[in-house]
Amino acid sequence: MKRVINFAAGPAAIPLEVLEQAQAEMLDWKGTGCSVMEVSHRGKEYDALHHEAMDLFREIAGMGPEWKILFTTGGASTQFLMLPMNYLGDGKEADYISTGNWSKAAIKEAKRFGTITMPANMELEGGVFHAIPKQSELKFNPKAEYVHYTTNNTIMGTEFHYTPDAHGKPLIADMSSDIFSRPMEFNKHSMIYAGAQKNLGPSGVTVVAIKEDFLAKAKEDLPTMMSYKIFNEHDSMFNTPPCFSIYILDLVLQWIKKNGGLEERQRVNDAKQKLIYATVDGSGGFYKGSAEKDSRSWMNIDFKLPSPELDEKFVKDAKAAGIVQTKGYRTMGGIRLSCYNAVSLKDVETTVAFMKDFQQKNG
Amino acid sequence: MKRVINFAAGPAAIPLEVLEQAQAEMLDWKGTGCSVMEVSHRGKEYDALHHEAMDLFREIAGMGPEWKILFTTGGASTQFLMLPMNYLGDGKEADYISTGNWSKAAIKEAKRFGTITMPANMELEGGVFHAIPKQSELKFNPKAEYVHYTTNNTIMGTEFHYTPDAHGKPLIADMSSDIFSRPMEFNKHSMIYAGAQKNLGPSGVTVVAIKEDFLAKAKEDLPTMMSYKIFNEHDSMFNTPPCFSIYILDLVLQWIKKNGGLEERQRVNDAKQKLIYATVDGSGGFYKGSAEKDSRSWMNIDFKLPSPELDEKFVKDAKAAGIVQTKGYRTMGGIRLSCYNAVSLKDVETTVAFMKDFQQKNG
Repeated sequence: MKRVINFAAGPAAIPLEVLEQAQAEMLDWKGTGCSVMEVSHRGKEYDALHHEAMDLFREIAGMGPEWKILFTTGGASTQFLMLPMNYLGDGKEADYISTGNWSKAAIKEAKRFGTITMPANMELEGGVFHAIPKQSELKFNPKAEYVHYTTNNTIMGTEFHYTPDAHGKPLIADMSSDIFSRPMEFNKHSMIYAGAQKNLGPSGVTVVAIKEDFLAKAKEDLPTMMSYKIFNEHDSMFNTPPCFSIYILDLVLQWIKKNGGLEERQRVNDAKQKLIYATVDGSGGFYKGSAEKDSRSWMNIDFKLPSPELDEKFVKDAKAAGIVQTKGYRTMGGIRLSCYNAVSLKDVETTVAFMKDFQQKNG
Repeated sequence: MKRVINFAAGPAAIPLEVLEQAQAEMLDWKGTGCSVMEVSHRGKEYDALHHEAMDLFREIAGMGPEWKILFTTGGASTQFLMLPMNYLGDGKEADYISTGNWSKAAIKEAKRFGTITMPANMELEGGVFHAIPKQSELKFNPKAEYVHYTTNNTIMGTEFHYTPDAHGKPLIADMSSDIFSRPMEFNKHSMIYAGAQKNLGPSGVTVVAIKEDFLAKAKEDLPTMMSYKIFNEHDSMFNTPPCFSIYILDLVLQWIKKNGGLEERQRVNDAKQKLIYATVDGSGGFYKGSAEKDSRSWMNIDFKLPSPELDEKFVKDAKAAGIVQTKGYRTMGGIRLSCYNAVSLKDVETTVAFMKDFQQKNG
């Protein structure tokens, strides 16, 4: 069995010990004589796991009991729809900060339900985004029901390094691609959400954390599977939840907690990003970063080599060296190293050594 | 490692060899050096798996290329919403045959989008359902856009043993709890759907099979994640699919194919249901079946013992004998044996021996 260094952008690397535990328990989970996939979601074993994952999420985030944790499906893309369906309509307005393709997708869905204004739109000609706006550049709509933003942009490799001050409006964040990568000011938000498949586990479950005062303002009369209130009232078990994805989520949360929580994630992720960007910046232009320096993402590090042919050779040689999924997003080209939590500092050290060696041979 | 005989109603038993393969491949899937949970859904390995599962589904069902296979999330409960959202509105009407709690839940959601008529409503006083209507009892609405029914009712233990003739209207079936348990007249339908967690694999993925002529009539301007057309146009990869659930689905489909397809499922499932019902009917009233005899489900076999105390003792003694998840649905009481595909004939033989022994000791 060979394991690779995996820079996939999502679905992404999962901690090896999580996979090893899932493997060991595959035929007999907690002495049930069944896989976790084979037990009733109404039974006491699954129920305990489900609530353990909710509690661990709250604990790691430093969230109090006023935060309700929901497990939904359909990814962040379904949250792009559920959020405005629960809060807009009847001529209501909302602010969406536009910093990348994911923000744009959220705005597109929200426009079906209300008037959407943009405190900042960072899109440049050709549909590219290279930067995060400064707080002073944000122009809020006083009539907005809430302010939505995307903390990290996987495609463009940019990330918010501050929490926007929404001037008293409920602040909502799509944190799919940098959640739990470091301590964040969760409590300045009214709701956050994240597809699990980057920092939290496998695809198939989306975590929504919502403060009870904001939840209270959600509409009542909605289709069952679109209602935040129904998800909350039924502990996200109105229907059968995606049990196996929640099981892996729970194991990943245990792994985060056991390994020093978000402070340790910050220390490691900071060291990782510093190493790679230093290699890019120190390459004399051989590696060229895409994002503006003060907007650079810790999670998705995009850069280009002097030619598309060299980009391609980099991907190929890296793979031969056991470093995979380094190809940039299809519209971006170049290289993307997605450095989520399960990519270790040692993985990055090996990769940086590869980058230097590659430059020496091809520069 | 002990494995039990598992009569869970869903999530339910999965074939042992499927779990063993998933276990063996957990750290290195197809030589990728990653788990299937860790690879990009845009990569060639996952893409091949995704389409293999679609093709296998079509092949096992005997569906031609005019059938489009979609992988959605949110269970059948989300289909209760998506179906009317895609086809009703603007004063349109639809027929829903009501044969149990799942039919009722589908009707409740559909009423948000149009006028719902019932060719038959089998609900008795107290919200119970014991029977499936005969074809001659169905009174169709000539203005209906489609006719919807639920092939099997997990709670009440009833099942359609014929395909309703919808007089030329598109026929839609929720087959969540008996799909692929035997050959069915799939081609008399315009759309079928099934949450995977009973006969197809784990929770977290819902298979929707839709004929292209019916798909063509779906609305265009819908929220992205609610649109059948968008799911189809993007091969169910508009957003990140629930990859691991689809992986297990694919392994279960391979298992069905390898083991004689739906004809062999029919042979085994028929033998299983005959054994259990014969034991119930031959018990001199000790075991008393809930459903009317000609409506009895092959999948969910409900019966009661002479007292709730004996029901409870049955569940306890069965568990001690390695036979688990036999407790009836919370509103029904009694015993429910859910005999999905992964419950073997040998499992049922062991269980029937237990039932006879239990009666002898407690009757």
